[in-house]
Amino acid sequence: MAENGLAQRGKVLTLESMNPFVKKVEYAVRGPIVTRAVQLEKELQQGAKKPFSEVIRANIGDAQAMGQKPITFFRQVSALCMYPELLKDPSFPKDAKEKAQRLLAACGGQSIGAYSASPGIEIIRQDVAHFIERRDGGIPSNPENIFLSTGASDAIVTILKLLVSGEGRSRTGVLIPIPQYPLYSAALAELNAVQINYYLDEEKCWALDIGELRRALHQAREHCHPRALCIINPGNPTGQVQSRQCIEDVIHFAWEEQLFLLADEVYQDNVYAEGSHFHSFKKVLFEMGPKYSESVELASFHSISKGFMGECGFRGGYMEVINMDPHVLQQLTKLVSVRLCPPVTGQVLLGVVVNQPQPNEPSYPQFSREKEAVLSALAKKARMTEKVLNQAPGIRCNPVQGAMYAFPQIQLPPLAVQEAKAQGQAPDMFFCLKLLEETGICIVPGSGFGQKDGTFHFRMTILPPPEKLELMLQKLTHFYAKFAQQYSQAPLTGSNNVEMMEPTGC
Amino acid sequence: MAENGLAQRGKVLTLESMNPFVKKVEYAVRGPIVTRAVQLEKELQQGAKKPFSEVIRANIGDAQAMGQKPITFFRQVSALCMYPELLKDPSFPKDAKEKAQRLLAACGGQSIGAYSASPGIEIIRQDVAHFIERRDGGIPSNPENIFLSTGASDAIVTILKLLVSGEGRSRTGVLIPIPQYPLYSAALAELNAVQINYYLDEEKCWALDIGELRRALHQAREHCHPRALCIINPGNPTGQVQSRQCIEDVIHFAWEEQLFLLADEVYQDNVYAEGSHFHSFKKVLFEMGPKYSESVELASFHSISKGFMGECGFRGGYMEVINMDPHVLQQLTKLVSVRLCPPVTGQVLLGVVVNQPQPNEPSYPQFSREKEAVLSALAKKARMTEKVLNQAPGIRCNPVQGAMYAFPQIQLPPLAVQEAKAQGQAPDMFFCLKLLEETGICIVPGSGFGQKDGTFHFRMTILPPPEKLELMLQKLTHFYAKFAQQYSQAPLTGSNNVEMMEPTGC
Repeated sequence: MAENGLAQRGKVLTLESMNPFVKKVEYAVRGPIVTRAVQLEKELQQGAKKPFSEVIRANIGDAQAMGQKPITFFRQVSALCMYPELLKDPSFPKDAKEKAQRLLAACGGQSIGAYSASPGIEIIRQDVAHFIERRDGGIPSNPENIFLSTGASDAIVTILKLLVSGEGRSRTGVLIPIPQYPLYSAALAELNAVQINYYLDEEKCWALDIGELRRALHQAREHCHPRALCIINPGNPTGQVQSRQCIEDVIHFAWEEQLFLLADEVYQDNVYAEGSHFHSFKKVLFEMGPKYSESVELASFHSISKGFMGECGFRGGYMEVINMDPHVLQQLTKLVSVRLCPPVTGQVLLGVVVNQPQPNEPSYPQFSREKEAVLSALAKKARMTEKVLNQAPGIRCNPVQGAMYAFPQIQLPPLAVQEAKAQGQAPDMFFCLKLLEETGICIVPGSGFGQKDGTFHFRMTILPPPEKLELMLQKLTHFYAKFAQQYSQAPLTGSNNVEMMEPTGC
Repeated sequence: MAENGLAQRGKVLTLESMNPFVKKVEYAVRGPIVTRAVQLEKELQQGAKKPFSEVIRANIGDAQAMGQKPITFFRQVSALCMYPELLKDPSFPKDAKEKAQRLLAACGGQSIGAYSASPGIEIIRQDVAHFIERRDGGIPSNPENIFLSTGASDAIVTILKLLVSGEGRSRTGVLIPIPQYPLYSAALAELNAVQINYYLDEEKCWALDIGELRRALHQAREHCHPRALCIINPGNPTGQVQSRQCIEDVIHFAWEEQLFLLADEVYQDNVYAEGSHFHSFKKVLFEMGPKYSESVELASFHSISKGFMGECGFRGGYMEVINMDPHVLQQLTKLVSVRLCPPVTGQVLLGVVVNQPQPNEPSYPQFSREKEAVLSALAKKARMTEKVLNQAPGIRCNPVQGAMYAFPQIQLPPLAVQEAKAQGQAPDMFFCLKLLEETGICIVPGSGFGQKDGTFHFRMTILPPPEKLELMLQKLTHFYAKFAQQYSQAPLTGSNNVEMMEPTGC
């Protein structure tokens, strides 16, 4: 024991002694580039001179942070639940009051301050089931299979937790797309499961190729036990919308290969491209007949953070599980009970999202106007983003068919790649950091999502208001041209000559 | 591959193949007894005849579900943030509007629908730091050490996650009190860490005994690597409030034995017994001088679910970490970023809880009246509960010095113990289920929290309104007497003759 008592006691918890799986976790969407963006904002506030007047955060799908206004009706119902005195206020519409009263009646002590049942408030689970039935043309949905969650992330991690087991060659492996949303890699690292990459086909608008799935699966079987397959549709960060045929193929593959399906469908309302439609995995599964619909295990995830509502701060979402073993369903119910319940404010907002004003109700005109305005603005911005990026030599962007992101490929000159490596940075991180310092534009390097070796990308959201987005795209492409020239004593590099390519087969 | 294609494909995810550590998780507060209570409520609604007209849920610390009204000011500020149109409404007080405007200005896009920074909204972290400084007589608190969370549970699990590592004899062990709040056992099971039990001294009002801590630690060192020590003060489920001396002893012990301290202080506002005071671990640590304050690693947890606010549904809380290795602090920041952010509605409500109306502000009179009413009612109910329970032969209850629970010991006749075992139930579960079926009273058996072998307890909240609580206590003690008599062909059993004992040393 130390005699003088000072500084003799080392730390219990150090980088060396901490959980090694947590150490492996990476999460680029909020990584070093965002830390630097926050610093720059503070420097600007303190009057520092910069070549830009504001930081544009195009790093994260956070619509309201980018100026999107909340849907009035959702907030009216939520405010009535928050402070029921307002039920006496004549300025709130009747249908908002009715919805609020119905939701409050389902809360413990008629208050959103009470815990709910752990899988969520019962009538909201019922409403979610009806919502799914309407979406899927009447295919039945059982409220007992619906679990409300703290955003979709919570539900995804919960299902992955159930799936993880084994060691060595029997360790659980999970197939995820590359590029991927880094929640998946982060959760798998933390749970010490094996991440199995299947590559989306950039040449075919980021389509999912079953041959590539099969390759990834069979290679993985040599060193682990693949048990689950994640699909993100519409894609994040890649913005593609899967065809119905592709979904059928994936379901058949999962059936054939004994894989549990995780369908991340949080962008189901965000489909812009002509000819693209959202097909839920649940619907396709049931349309394929009992051979599939009675056997393939599926968890589908949805959220109030995206779509036209963009209520990220509420952390609301749900999952529907299909064909889950009843004993495992009990285990799932037990597991979610440890955290007591998802935030009731998020549940209530979800309750309104799945139970929207109908044409005969007083709030319908304003509601549908607001909803339509958000979705049509997003569609325009998706097209504008693709167009402006593809006009820039050295940048190639697939159509933004859905979701909220463009994920263009960029050529980086060999000298830039060299300099990045000398500084210990991924080349696309090097580019994004320089872009941030010179323009205030905050985007995320492709290396944070995964990409084919030797290719470079970035993810940007299409969420800034149209004029700001247009300006941002101009600044970005100008900066890229300058950057490419600055490092262009040598010819451009990249897996292929990006500027020569045309989007094909999309 | 199956030829007919039907029912030939087994489940991927089964009880046998699922995560074995999740399977080990237990959580009594929402276990089978609550499932049965929910069923009974439905049966009552459907008009079934029962010997009671309503189920009284005294199983969980859920104040508003038991009829406690929310604090008006908290909900006013939250409603203004939810629906900023209300800022024009003259019926909202000026100070509520000012607080709401300040909070909104700190949100992305001035909306609670935007994600916040992952450790929480910066000004709320600052306000939490000031709140802690006021609470602790000016001892400084650094906002960089404050992490807002999704209820306290989230923060507790996050710290445990960081601490877990190793296998076999070097596997992380964590000391937890017995009886404990089952979040701890559940999280440790899920993380595959070793749960090390130290027993609180029921004969001394559930005091923590350093000798017992030392015994538990030294025994555990033979088979694992104890690295952390959890304390719940005021106690859950046991309701004791630790003395300052005891806290000093615990801190010295942690210093001496190289243990990371986790102080669960969510009931810090809930202290009722004369002579009992809440002392935060942070304050005592700093008052013990630099030998301790510069070395002992501490995480302290707080929540908006308890105290006088009881806003469980919002899932708001925070932790303060002290002396955490700066590299680990970075890892913690990274880890919380994967889940994006705690619910902003919970953050906002926490922001008002740590920044309450002051005597010169318009909302102060009503606010302080409401706060005082809740806390004095709880104090009265704590005394009433102790008194009524101790009048019943065979039941002995320590003083409810703080928190929201009584955890009385009950004698169970040997015949009842036999019958319970024959039915595969813990004897106290057997008792609680029978109580529920006959009276509608839902309480949690002591076996869900841990207790000395051969002793039996239950946990009940003191949250029902006074008249209902009094009635419930009468029904409960009458039922107990009847139950004891029914099984009393043999003498009563239990580790000691409960009915003869007087509370001592409290």
